[in-house]
Amino acid sequence: MAAMTNDLESTPVAVLGLGAMGRALAAAFLRAGHPTTVWNRSPGKDGDLAAQGAVRAVSAAEAVRAADLVVVCVVDHDAAQSVIEASAGDLPGRVLVNLTSDTPERSRTTAAWANERGIDYLDGSIMVPIPVVGQPEALIFYSGPRAAYEKYEGALKSLGGRPAYLGEDQGLAAVYDLALLDFFYSGMAGLVHAFALAEADGVPAASLAPYLDTIAAILPPIAAGTAQDIDAGSYPGAAANLGMMAAGAGHVLEAAEHRGLDVSTLRSVKEIADRAIARGHAADSWASTIEVVRARSTS
Amino acid sequence: MAAMTNDLESTPVAVLGLGAMGRALAAAFLRAGHPTTVWNRSPGKDGDLAAQGAVRAVSAAEAVRAADLVVVCVVDHDAAQSVIEASAGDLPGRVLVNLTSDTPERSRTTAAWANERGIDYLDGSIMVPIPVVGQPEALIFYSGPRAAYEKYEGALKSLGGRPAYLGEDQGLAAVYDLALLDFFYSGMAGLVHAFALAEADGVPAASLAPYLDTIAAILPPIAAGTAQDIDAGSYPGAAANLGMMAAGAGHVLEAAEHRGLDVSTLRSVKEIADRAIARGHAADSWASTIEVVRARSTS
Repeated sequence: MAAMTNDLESTPVAVLGLGAMGRALAAAFLRAGHPTTVWNRSPGKDGDLAAQGAVRAVSAAEAVRAADLVVVCVVDHDAAQSVIEASAGDLPGRVLVNLTSDTPERSRTTAAWANERGIDYLDGSIMVPIPVVGQPEALIFYSGPRAAYEKYEGALKSLGGRPAYLGEDQGLAAVYDLALLDFFYSGMAGLVHAFALAEADGVPAASLAPYLDTIAAILPPIAAGTAQDIDAGSYPGAAANLGMMAAGAGHVLEAAEHRGLDVSTLRSVKEIADRAIARGHAADSWASTIEVVRARSTS
Repeated sequence: MAAMTNDLESTPVAVLGLGAMGRALAAAFLRAGHPTTVWNRSPGKDGDLAAQGAVRAVSAAEAVRAADLVVVCVVDHDAAQSVIEASAGDLPGRVLVNLTSDTPERSRTTAAWANERGIDYLDGSIMVPIPVVGQPEALIFYSGPRAAYEKYEGALKSLGGRPAYLGEDQGLAAVYDLALLDFFYSGMAGLVHAFALAEADGVPAASLAPYLDTIAAILPPIAAGTAQDIDAGSYPGAAANLGMMAAGAGHVLEAAEHRGLDVSTLRSVKEIADRAIARGHAADSWASTIEVVRARSTS
């Protein structure tokens, strides 16, 4: 504890916004020994934090003035913008980190606004649920000026042991966030559809679940290979090529339709594969479907 | 090797069908020390196997007569049915294992045919690519009479170290196979879409791929929790409920449309979530979407 609270390693921080996530962030800073000032628009959210050693500020500007590193985590972009504007005069010379979920476009708008005012601005995305905040495995994306990130990387590690700096463009944290969610929601839809398919033949979901893990386990190496193909713009088909996989998807589709299930998602997946095959990718890998996915903008 | 080839542990086997998969199966039996007789409709596929100790039969029936355990792996159901019919008179008293990929319906048709003739019939699905056949991690599903499976479980482990017996219904191996593929193709579609979304903002696929692993890693525990909810028919929403996740999916959809990507799959995923919310599941978990997926049959 002594090592964590010595003057060299501790950073005065402010946390603006004390919803469930904001409180978790403040508590993580406090546990790591950083002097932490907290503020919330509506009062009464900071009781536990004060007991843990947080200083309560009566305004966002007051909290900012007490800190070198300012973290904002509120409900949406408009709320974040209003909190930041209220303390704009005190932000230059400090580093502002906005962990409010947002689109890349809005993150870049806020970044441009901050840049005009000489404010060092980092945008971030917290990729873990609240109970995991502050843990070694907690992944948090950051983007914006590298020097600002590097200056406070140590303190930011208090919030999650896996910080990932993505680049100067403040929109990148949101881009990675959305891309991961894109994969996640497809995966969730596939999980539930698989359970529905098995259930139609009397298989309890709990019996199928352990085998779904086998599929989840092969996705990371496939993701790495798919990434390589996409970046190279060439998609050599190996043992399993798109033609075979589209046929496989067709069998699943047929079985699901036969059992009266909704097949809208699966049909769309199959159609994308079929369109890639029509473009000549039958002997290529599944990665070649990216040419269909991005077709609206390139054709 | 001595232990693997002694009389108690070795089983005379026949492998009918010597395509790439059939050859891998025969080679795996030979490596484990089982006397192996092989046959293929067209000649010339068994040279390597003979060099490894396989006996070549001139007909399917001759191969069957040399074996206690008969494995069929051919291109499709019709081919399997014709091979099995050609040796039908010699199959009673032996165990027939059909590893040809097929639908649950066709597996049950073959099972009924076999049952009428007093043939012990197991249907199986090989869940790994050819190079993994015979390895300790190779998952193979089996379904059919339990006694027949248990009698030859030891020999079948030569083909894959993770055999899974699923139940008496011969259709079950294909049901599990299709359900896993259902999840797999959704996951693949999600991977490629995530790469396309990130690429639109200049992110190389190789930069995104390692973080997709983080999502793949959380799917198994989520699958277990989702299975529990589905089997219980109750879907308590935790930190992340369907309402929040549908909003998240909406943000991804908006960003993907804004970037000109094909969003057919993602839109279908979002619509299923929205329909579950319209049925009152906003505060429930994603598992509640199963009520929409199976709605065609139950409403």
